[in-house]
Amino acid sequence: MKLLITSGGTSEKIDQVRSITNHSTGKLGALIADSFLAQGDQVTLITTRNAIKPAAHPNLTIQIIENVQELFEMMKPLVKTHDVLIHSMAVSDYTPIYMTGFEQITTSQDLTEFLNKTNKQSKISSKDNYQVLFLKQTPKIISQVKKWNPNIRLIGFKLLVDVSKEELLTVARASLTKNQAEIIVANDLSDISDNQHHAYLVKINSVIKVDTKEEIAQQLVTHIHTKDNL
Amino acid sequence: MKLLITSGGTSEKIDQVRSITNHSTGKLGALIADSFLAQGDQVTLITTRNAIKPAAHPNLTIQIIENVQELFEMMKPLVKTHDVLIHSMAVSDYTPIYMTGFEQITTSQDLTEFLNKTNKQSKISSKDNYQVLFLKQTPKIISQVKKWNPNIRLIGFKLLVDVSKEELLTVARASLTKNQAEIIVANDLSDISDNQHHAYLVKINSVIKVDTKEEIAQQLVTHIHTKDNL
Repeated sequence: MKLLITSGGTSEKIDQVRSITNHSTGKLGALIADSFLAQGDQVTLITTRNAIKPAAHPNLTIQIIENVQELFEMMKPLVKTHDVLIHSMAVSDYTPIYMTGFEQITTSQDLTEFLNKTNKQSKISSKDNYQVLFLKQTPKIISQVKKWNPNIRLIGFKLLVDVSKEELLTVARASLTKNQAEIIVANDLSDISDNQHHAYLVKINSVIKVDTKEEIAQQLVTHIHTKDNL
Repeated sequence: MKLLITSGGTSEKIDQVRSITNHSTGKLGALIADSFLAQGDQVTLITTRNAIKPAAHPNLTIQIIENVQELFEMMKPLVKTHDVLIHSMAVSDYTPIYMTGFEQITTSQDLTEFLNKTNKQSKISSKDNYQVLFLKQTPKIISQVKKWNPNIRLIGFKLLVDVSKEELLTVARASLTKNQAEIIVANDLSDISDNQHHAYLVKINSVIKVDTKEEIAQQLVTHIHTKDNL
């Protein structure tokens, strides 16, 4: 079976020296890749320069991306040639457009002007006590996956922070339906540490609770390799 | 001799899952630390989790920080107990205050209200097509160093991007005088790659041009260990 796995977190440049980064060690994605490789599957892993990576393996191909645009362009053709997508990467929701001093925006007659500006300096400098950064939404890649390949089996992830179990499951179920995923792995950052990783594997008619990264990987292997599991 | 060296780049949290990071591998700072350790000096290295670090050494102490506030609190006492500070860390100029949807700022009567707001969510969510992030200046640590310890010997760094040699040297000389440094290592990001690192060591009456990280480290060792070199 050919699996496409994403891991790590994307970074969106503000200028040549600063980026907004979504934190993710890549540890879980690397573990999931290892678990499928151990079953004899072929794995393409899309990840970031700083992410933790699996050891080299004859059935493993690693592709490095930095930002959402690169991820989008890398995924589009690969989604069409793989059987399963496990999309564990922390993808930036917004990307910088323009940064300026606070004074400049207080004197503007129409704030929408800043949504069409671009910084000309390679390193944005400012003497202002306050700065303002305008950002725009990035394309929602997960919602494109089934359009690119209606037959791909999709496993998505949803990370929230400090929410109730009820809210976490509600948000995960909405993503499951909207993106036509088989499972959404729902987790709360407050429940993740080096030794534990509480998560819910949310399917259309069931929820499995797990407590470690190893269990998440094992449950995904079992799910993907068991027939009639929808 | 006791040296305090900083390396890597600080990260300022937007929320629990996103940060603005100043890029710096920490490679140069690690090399400088190694060069002084090889001379028998004692080194305290303040760096970041992801930065490249020197190999363990009996005369080396490593302290990890993440953001400017932590760097400030870590440096203040250490500056008082060291003979030399080599401050090569890429320190964030600005830190996030508040993030909100673009619509919210267009309806505001007084934009200064956003400079006093704080996000209550641990992961800022928004359905808006555009978001706005307000930031404030961080404390300029380098300008405090001589107040904390008038006797410490200070080596500073100035990184610009895509500027003329003339502008780079002018900015470096201004920093040399303002911060009472012995040397400002002035470099342009466009002149730095894996194998080369063009830089100017700017002193009050001279400029030394170097082409690699090894040369920068060696010049700093020579300068610090040679008497009457001011």
